[in-house]
Amino acid sequence: MGQEFDVKELLHLLEENSTEEIKNALDDIHPADIIDALDDYEGDRTLLLSRFPIEMLAAIIEEAEDDDKGELFDLFSKEKKKEIINEMASDELVDLLETMDPEEASDILESLDEEDAQDIKDLMRYHPETAGGIMATEFVAIIDSMTVEETLKYLQVHGEEAESISYLYVLNQDEILQGVVALRDVVTSSFDTHITTLINTNVISVEPGLDQEGVSHIFAKYGFASVPVVDKNNRMLGIVTADDILDVVLEESTDDIEKMAALAHNEGEYLSTGVFKLAKQRIFWLLFLMISATFTGVIIQGYEQELASFVILAAFIPMLMDTGGNAGSQSSTLIIRGMALGEIAARDFFIVFYKELLISIIVGVALAAVNFFRVWIFHHDYMLALTVSGALFFTVILAKTVGSMLPIIARKLKIDPAIMAAPIITTIVDALSLVIYLNLARHIYISALVK
Amino acid sequence: MGQEFDVKELLHLLEENSTEEIKNALDDIHPADIIDALDDYEGDRTLLLSRFPIEMLAAIIEEAEDDDKGELFDLFSKEKKKEIINEMASDELVDLLETMDPEEASDILESLDEEDAQDIKDLMRYHPETAGGIMATEFVAIIDSMTVEETLKYLQVHGEEAESISYLYVLNQDEILQGVVALRDVVTSSFDTHITTLINTNVISVEPGLDQEGVSHIFAKYGFASVPVVDKNNRMLGIVTADDILDVVLEESTDDIEKMAALAHNEGEYLSTGVFKLAKQRIFWLLFLMISATFTGVIIQGYEQELASFVILAAFIPMLMDTGGNAGSQSSTLIIRGMALGEIAARDFFIVFYKELLISIIVGVALAAVNFFRVWIFHHDYMLALTVSGALFFTVILAKTVGSMLPIIARKLKIDPAIMAAPIITTIVDALSLVIYLNLARHIYISALVK
Repeated sequence: MGQEFDVKELLHLLEENSTEEIKNALDDIHPADIIDALDDYEGDRTLLLSRFPIEMLAAIIEEAEDDDKGELFDLFSKEKKKEIINEMASDELVDLLETMDPEEASDILESLDEEDAQDIKDLMRYHPETAGGIMATEFVAIIDSMTVEETLKYLQVHGEEAESISYLYVLNQDEILQGVVALRDVVTSSFDTHITTLINTNVISVEPGLDQEGVSHIFAKYGFASVPVVDKNNRMLGIVTADDILDVVLEESTDDIEKMAALAHNEGEYLSTGVFKLAKQRIFWLLFLMISATFTGVIIQGYEQELASFVILAAFIPMLMDTGGNAGSQSSTLIIRGMALGEIAARDFFIVFYKELLISIIVGVALAAVNFFRVWIFHHDYMLALTVSGALFFTVILAKTVGSMLPIIARKLKIDPAIMAAPIITTIVDALSLVIYLNLARHIYISALVK
Repeated sequence: MGQEFDVKELLHLLEENSTEEIKNALDDIHPADIIDALDDYEGDRTLLLSRFPIEMLAAIIEEAEDDDKGELFDLFSKEKKKEIINEMASDELVDLLETMDPEEASDILESLDEEDAQDIKDLMRYHPETAGGIMATEFVAIIDSMTVEETLKYLQVHGEEAESISYLYVLNQDEILQGVVALRDVVTSSFDTHITTLINTNVISVEPGLDQEGVSHIFAKYGFASVPVVDKNNRMLGIVTADDILDVVLEESTDDIEKMAALAHNEGEYLSTGVFKLAKQRIFWLLFLMISATFTGVIIQGYEQELASFVILAAFIPMLMDTGGNAGSQSSTLIIRGMALGEIAARDFFIVFYKELLISIIVGVALAAVNFFRVWIFHHDYMLALTVSGALFFTVILAKTVGSMLPIIARKLKIDPAIMAAPIITTIVDALSLVIYLNLARHIYISALVK
């Protein structure tokens, strides 16, 4: 990765002096690289950071992980804090304020000019995981009577502050969104072109209440660099940009994967998180599932006599449970992921049910057939093979229908479908498959032997 | 989602006639929406599409799912195909060609002019899941002696063709990358500004062999709109754009999630995939795991006598297996996801091992303690509680170390770590925990009773 500038070398230079030259050199380094270097820096971070220009400090806090923002920000004096927040984009400032206690946050808001403070307060009213919560209010608004040359001159004055200028938004005097012009079309058209010929009036926008997963579906479908957020009257409120959405998509996928593995949510990277915090992330669900699983013990005790006489029956319990768990988690995983990607909706309940039923019959027959021959070959016991394969067949059907239906039901109940993943499904399917198996054993295998 | 234009209405109009006006209206509609409407369209798609302008057809094929690209493309005559591919971006054309049989692909390549054909052949040599495989060769190269006004005029002529113009690349006469200029900086600077003052020479670039997951880490870290791909001599080869990367991130997350749930890879959305194809995706791994799990049956049969005499021992097997499986999959999931996000590398083997060992001791003690009291209360059997809790403690430790180490070992062996997820871990941990449990039962529980 052709990173030609040695960031650590630069930090070292900064320690020595703080000439304009070095500050200019800083402009060529991405703040993400400075954060990496700061992590390893062993000197006095406060002193070092005091030599950075304000814009760079704002960029560093914007780039930092949510966990570290507050800590970094606290390194500065009250005076410097005010300068920094004046340089920050509105969406990033909201993220920072959300890591603080309310009193400190309102202290900081007071240092902003009234209009900006109002903007931030408005933004903080939206849920952080909605379009409103991740949007920035800094966008470029233009009017449609301009030419390309006038637009470019306008951008020279007003473009600097915007979060993204990939699209310019045509608003009327009531701030109602009339259309959108791609910067790309502006710069590839001759100076005398009228903006009206470049406007796309068929604007794809989102409402501020749309959850961020829904916003990510729009980006995945259309590949936009940014999307406008408008209220019910089509009044322009802000923009969501693609780089924010990449973070959202990674975060949402990680959230889902964590839930699917019975892990509580945990901010921060594995290597930098302490052992106790990581243990805490895991204990609750393990305890919950352990206690739920003891229910299977009660079922087994109910068939104590059968199992004491025919221990061979116990030998198949782990295989049945594992296969049921795997078959169920396949279905729940596909449905959970399909819903996360916006491919499956709660209204598809019956289509999914029917499909999973057919699939489970195909899969169940295949597994039961292979299992039948395996048991026959190793145990030369026709009734045993029939009992185990029969239980396997019904276990697969049960596992797949339960595994596919529970996530959809969860979504209907406004619970996160990812909760209904492998661990829960396995616990439920285990108990059901044991009941099926031990009943088949009692009524087919043992009653045949007794005759 | 303020989609104000009715796409279906437009398709209907297109059926009626094909005036210039309607074709112009098409410009305002995103090809992704046209694809959606075409999916539901019941008339003659070939006839309808014949009325679309060529650029729109190229955009539709570019936007279509990989599975559908070939099918859509085959609707056109040989002549029209040639026109369409001339309008397509290089990276998209490569994707299309890769869905065809080699003969047809080389037929199509011949219709391109020599230079373009060579570009495409070069691109097709890279693995489709590397930077080289997803890059486009259409970027804007400039020289550093230009002013802003000259650059803008240059873009008016040469900007149209580029895949992205968010960054302009400063190359020397040998095509060596010297620096990068953000379009944003160009349009927010006055016309007489010299490009030299806007150049960032500390360019972050990728090599064509870097796998796409590695490329996505660069985008996630820096939030770029595009990244240049350069060879070892820093010669500029192409660019990878953020919208391609969003697709990559979604695809890689889905791949990992599928593997973690023992699902074979399957292109295409759940609802539009046939029952047999979905069943096929699941059968192989279920069969493999079912047969592996029968190993646990052999272990149980080895303790037939103990289990026949003390059926109560069998009652705890499902709980132990489930807890082991869940504890192991927590660890493997965190490590697999951490590696996918670039947070954990294979060289962190020992740190991870040490951390998981400590975590598993904490978690193991907590679970064993709760379990001890539970067994004690329900069975009033001190030795039984000790045996089950002891087995539980060692099972958790084993599960977490095996669960965390196998994905890292897989990565070292150049196998996808996601293979080493819950299902495989569960199968291994099941067998190990049974051996621990039944041995503890034999040597602690039963020998105490016999005395």
